[in-house]
Amino acid sequence: MSGWLTDVGGPGFAHTYRIDEELYRGRSAFQEIRVIANSDFGRMLVLDEAVQTTERDEFIYHEMLAHLPLLAHPAPRRLLIIGGGDGGLLEEALKHPIESAVMVEIDRDVIDVTRRFLPQIPGGAFDDPRTRLHIADGIRFMDETTERFDVILVDSTDPKGPAIGLFAQPFYAAARQRLTPEGLIAVQSGSPLYQQDLIRMVRANLAAVFPQVVTSLATVPTYPGVLWSFTVGAAADPAAVSAESIARRTAGFALQYLTPEIHRGAFALPPFIARDLGISG
Amino acid sequence: MSGWLTDVGGPGFAHTYRIDEELYRGRSAFQEIRVIANSDFGRMLVLDEAVQTTERDEFIYHEMLAHLPLLAHPAPRRLLIIGGGDGGLLEEALKHPIESAVMVEIDRDVIDVTRRFLPQIPGGAFDDPRTRLHIADGIRFMDETTERFDVILVDSTDPKGPAIGLFAQPFYAAARQRLTPEGLIAVQSGSPLYQQDLIRMVRANLAAVFPQVVTSLATVPTYPGVLWSFTVGAAADPAAVSAESIARRTAGFALQYLTPEIHRGAFALPPFIARDLGISG
Repeated sequence: MSGWLTDVGGPGFAHTYRIDEELYRGRSAFQEIRVIANSDFGRMLVLDEAVQTTERDEFIYHEMLAHLPLLAHPAPRRLLIIGGGDGGLLEEALKHPIESAVMVEIDRDVIDVTRRFLPQIPGGAFDDPRTRLHIADGIRFMDETTERFDVILVDSTDPKGPAIGLFAQPFYAAARQRLTPEGLIAVQSGSPLYQQDLIRMVRANLAAVFPQVVTSLATVPTYPGVLWSFTVGAAADPAAVSAESIARRTAGFALQYLTPEIHRGAFALPPFIARDLGISG
Repeated sequence: MSGWLTDVGGPGFAHTYRIDEELYRGRSAFQEIRVIANSDFGRMLVLDEAVQTTERDEFIYHEMLAHLPLLAHPAPRRLLIIGGGDGGLLEEALKHPIESAVMVEIDRDVIDVTRRFLPQIPGGAFDDPRTRLHIADGIRFMDETTERFDVILVDSTDPKGPAIGLFAQPFYAAARQRLTPEGLIAVQSGSPLYQQDLIRMVRANLAAVFPQVVTSLATVPTYPGVLWSFTVGAAADPAAVSAESIARRTAGFALQYLTPEIHRGAFALPPFIARDLGISG
């Protein structure tokens, strides 16, 4: 199908997007990077044929992965982001009154291409004085750093190539060592529609290290699984945040997806998903 | 793309499904009807190239459109369903202790094809002694019937061809005349991702007739809009149902999607959707 991008979900289904313009296509040391323009979703960042983020719906994924864990911590000061090269997660996280945000992205080209073609996704996040950017392997960084963090966010690609280790228990164990006692980690954990094995593995690997493991859901229209999961490992239940606290702490954030009601609903798993993931209600 | 079914959303995006087997393809007086088998979603009913329902995810749409309105009525006895030829909605609705369910479907072939190739979707609903099936135009039926109903459910295709009038104000006005004082109507109102104009029109047309108009959302993975809307016109707020009441009234229903928490979350609109639909928070 020439002129269309096909983003494969399961073996028998895919999403397909008309390429109105190809703004960039190149190969970095790690992956193929494309930016296409589409009539319905605007500019789209595509890594190895998988849609990563789009102008139209980027805020759903980024608001979920930034604010659910940051709101679950009473007063986060030091943040670590692994991956997230498009900067959308960093931009959301910096809305909180944190002191520092360390971002470790393996592929500089993703950052450069996003800043050039999708500058509104990071906004000014990369130039924020609180941001410290490392171009490095996140797994190696986690083993070598001696810093401590209140919140760690893992915004990875699918578990293929260099991202595989980001879903494994040794990485979560190393992360636990780098967290403060009230600290927590949140990871994108794939689609409950066709990556149930991945989510179960992430939950088991986190549960070996953290007392609380909680999965939340959001709908990301441009991911072929459409229902997407975000899993937190923590010392305390990340869902136990009052509506008042959410409203107060996100006042002025101009969120497009998250509200106190959406926050609450994100932790409600439909029975068919809870069953597929082996989570009792 | 031979061997694949493409279900178009907006002008620039579509979902595509591999056809592992085509079990049925025929043309009724109203539309093309296909049943295909797909590795990821099982058997899929397709009308005029638009996926209507699948073995894998049919319960999401049907549980939403049946139970949200039926639970909003304190004691529904008489039900009218317009459309819904696959019988999945009827099957869900009959789980309630209603006395009668009148179903008006314009296309007998949809019922026959579903019963033959997707029999588990209606289950025994068409043979339930409470069911009265009319093969007729729903708009004409509404104008001519003298019956009264507690709940009317409109399970239509997209607003094209014979379904157009089901989204128009005269139909809603006629429905209001056929409802008991506490009665309510619920309609599938399309995708908030690419049918915002339709949802706004439905809401305005219902608001001309009903004091309360409330839109809820669910994610239907096999509809290209993925986020799907269901709109209720009623005398009272359909969201005002306690979790205890929902749990009690759905006990034994073996629901796969809806829980009291999902019910509550379904009425929480993300700000970007509320804005697109002109709904103030």
